[in-house]
Amino acid sequence: MMDNVDLVLASGSPRRSEILRQLGIKFRVIVSGEEEKPSCSDLLELPRMNAEIKALSVSKMDPYAVVLGFDTLVFVDGAPLGKPRNEAHALEMLKKLNHREHWVITGVAVARGGKILASSSEKTEVFFRDCSLQELQDYVNSKDPLDKAGAYGIQTNGARLIKSIKGCYYNVVGLPVACTLEMLDRVGIKV
Amino acid sequence: MMDNVDLVLASGSPRRSEILRQLGIKFRVIVSGEEEKPSCSDLLELPRMNAEIKALSVSKMDPYAVVLGFDTLVFVDGAPLGKPRNEAHALEMLKKLNHREHWVITGVAVARGGKILASSSEKTEVFFRDCSLQELQDYVNSKDPLDKAGAYGIQTNGARLIKSIKGCYYNVVGLPVACTLEMLDRVGIKV
Repeated sequence: MMDNVDLVLASGSPRRSEILRQLGIKFRVIVSGEEEKPSCSDLLELPRMNAEIKALSVSKMDPYAVVLGFDTLVFVDGAPLGKPRNEAHALEMLKKLNHREHWVITGVAVARGGKILASSSEKTEVFFRDCSLQELQDYVNSKDPLDKAGAYGIQTNGARLIKSIKGCYYNVVGLPVACTLEMLDRVGIKV
Repeated sequence: MMDNVDLVLASGSPRRSEILRQLGIKFRVIVSGEEEKPSCSDLLELPRMNAEIKALSVSKMDPYAVVLGFDTLVFVDGAPLGKPRNEAHALEMLKKLNHREHWVITGVAVARGGKILASSSEKTEVFFRDCSLQELQDYVNSKDPLDKAGAYGIQTNGARLIKSIKGCYYNVVGLPVACTLEMLDRVGIKV
């Protein structure tokens, strides 16, 4: 183990910080604030491109650190869902996701010295239960959906809505653990 | 919503309590201490039978409550793994699980008035990464495996070992959320 890796998480998400702490990994958080959305013909590539943009901009500010960037989007029938604008929009998203499958894709990028060392993305299929409108409305009333892509959290009371998943659980939370560890390993970094 | 359901969790597992709290469900904990293992020709039925035994024995002590019983086992090639006896046994289990699939089965039972109202079980397939012996040993050294069926926790630093799952995530933690909510719903109990 290289205990002296200076790892930086280029994300302000408390959920991502919590996952790294859960793994016993030491890190700092630097958020670039850069919100540039790349244009790209393949929408499924958006999370990886966004993750690269976030990792790169922080790496330029802090070139000696190993910087991890992430971006998570929810896709229904190939179209991305971001965070809801308000409660009505959250309910609309949840009705779209109810009683069917959708994808969660998280892009992962590692940068050092202002350059991308590696990037990838991880896809998990998520299946919603057949929830009643009242259940969806109760969940919206809890305010939990408002800061989350696709208007739900699998790690909160949003767990009520989820029947099953196929793939990496932590990818749905926003930081695919296995994918990230294996990517760091490939570029010679043990954490 | 029936706010006055007197729900009792017949399990001392802090992880199961945490999941019910996460869902915003009010409950009490009563542990019967009954450890009777049923004999049964189909080993995959063991978790459901154990869940029934736990729910029943608490329901007899507290007949007006709605009692939830659970039992979680890890199965490799059809054989159940319980909790490891010690660190060497934990490492042996993890080497068996490494770089392949296994099943986690949780039995769920609801009892009231000393009778089982419903019972079922939920199966999730879990895939381990190709972990190095050092990674497995580091995880054993963290002591996390010692109180867990199959010698790992997906909700702790054991997350490092898991590549993906197929099924309900919370089932792997020990309380299948969707299965439990739907079972309670079928017997007319809203939580």
